[in-house]
Amino acid sequence: MSEMMRQGIVVPTGLIAHGRGEAFDYLLGEITLPPAELAERVAAAMLMEAQRPVITVNGNAAALAPKELIELSKVINARLEVNLFHRSVERIELVCAYLESQGAKEVLGRIQDFTLPGIASDRALCSSEGIGMADVVLIPLEDGDRAEALVKAGKKVIAIDLNPVSRTSMAADVSIVDELTRAIPNITAHAGGLAEDGQRRSDLMSGFNNRRNLGHVLRDISDHLKFEMSSKA
Amino acid sequence: MSEMMRQGIVVPTGLIAHGRGEAFDYLLGEITLPPAELAERVAAAMLMEAQRPVITVNGNAAALAPKELIELSKVINARLEVNLFHRSVERIELVCAYLESQGAKEVLGRIQDFTLPGIASDRALCSSEGIGMADVVLIPLEDGDRAEALVKAGKKVIAIDLNPVSRTSMAADVSIVDELTRAIPNITAHAGGLAEDGQRRSDLMSGFNNRRNLGHVLRDISDHLKFEMSSKA
Repeated sequence: MSEMMRQGIVVPTGLIAHGRGEAFDYLLGEITLPPAELAERVAAAMLMEAQRPVITVNGNAAALAPKELIELSKVINARLEVNLFHRSVERIELVCAYLESQGAKEVLGRIQDFTLPGIASDRALCSSEGIGMADVVLIPLEDGDRAEALVKAGKKVIAIDLNPVSRTSMAADVSIVDELTRAIPNITAHAGGLAEDGQRRSDLMSGFNNRRNLGHVLRDISDHLKFEMSSKA
Repeated sequence: MSEMMRQGIVVPTGLIAHGRGEAFDYLLGEITLPPAELAERVAAAMLMEAQRPVITVNGNAAALAPKELIELSKVINARLEVNLFHRSVERIELVCAYLESQGAKEVLGRIQDFTLPGIASDRALCSSEGIGMADVVLIPLEDGDRAEALVKAGKKVIAIDLNPVSRTSMAADVSIVDELTRAIPNITAHAGGLAEDGQRRSDLMSGFNNRRNLGHVLRDISDHLKFEMSSKA
């Protein structure tokens, strides 16, 4: 990540955000917990059922899992849209070009001709062809304002966020509390497994309760902390 | 912290570490929990009873709480010693000079003529006049290797670390799970309150059980996460 900052893909506050993620991942025991696995399965179903799925990509996501994000976008036939928290024309170009250098095709984000209602800054800007018309949006490492605005705009929102009680996790329809490089390949794999089974996809979505699932994450974190404590005693 | 990185006081991995701290602080509700308050009180007693107390200062600690650290060192009559994780002669000079610009006198760390046993890197280096001969060492934001080595070297170790199950927190004699800019002024204030009361200082130290106190921190974190979850429901 330090190297990605030198390249300009990641900004200094992105490094701090990455550290926050590391701490939360530590609390999970750096594994995909069962409730995260379930959320990843539901996410795969929802992305496959979508008419216009979009995956948003910010600097940290591009730095951490470029190939994984590109692979997922191909499997579920989703658009990739670069959407930065610390936005500048130069940095958008940098991140788009980086994804393209890793094999991405037709990355959106250079043209931002749509404004999400409910956000008072240029973070409201996005692509009409991407987020603007999307029905399902996968938001890895997204801030709370944008997550809430996407939900209010009527999108189905799938978040990947290591903080189970962040505004993003609270706002999303499906909150995946897992580290990005574990979560994305898992979703891709589940998408493969669900490809032929529309009934199973439908059952997964209708049986899922996001708030209950986040409660299970908290229970697992609490158990893990107690275990860490006792194992080091 | 981004500005401190531009000055060279903080390194990129220091920003990531800072983010980890932010996440753990979030789990505490960004307050000084009762077990942290107790640990700060015990730390004050222990530092006042010390013959040769030393406060170690790394880049992040210098960036976050320079004046607070200097004030504490004066009140408890402790030496300040700069001890970096990412060490270079230039950066040691930079951090020493920064502390001096904030009012510190006789900062140690430029001359490292003592080697802590049990560490295979140049992180073992320290000052004989400081850590080398210290009986009590306050280590804000320290890594696990050095914390363990200090304990093995027979020092009484007081850690300030937002991760209650880190190796540092586990190794220390007194583990303060609190944010640095809250913890240091609290210790300073407690030192003032305990100045005339040797019996109280002694009682605080003998009645303190670090492992039990860390267990109380975990209980409070778990309670806080459940509260966050329910308040956002």
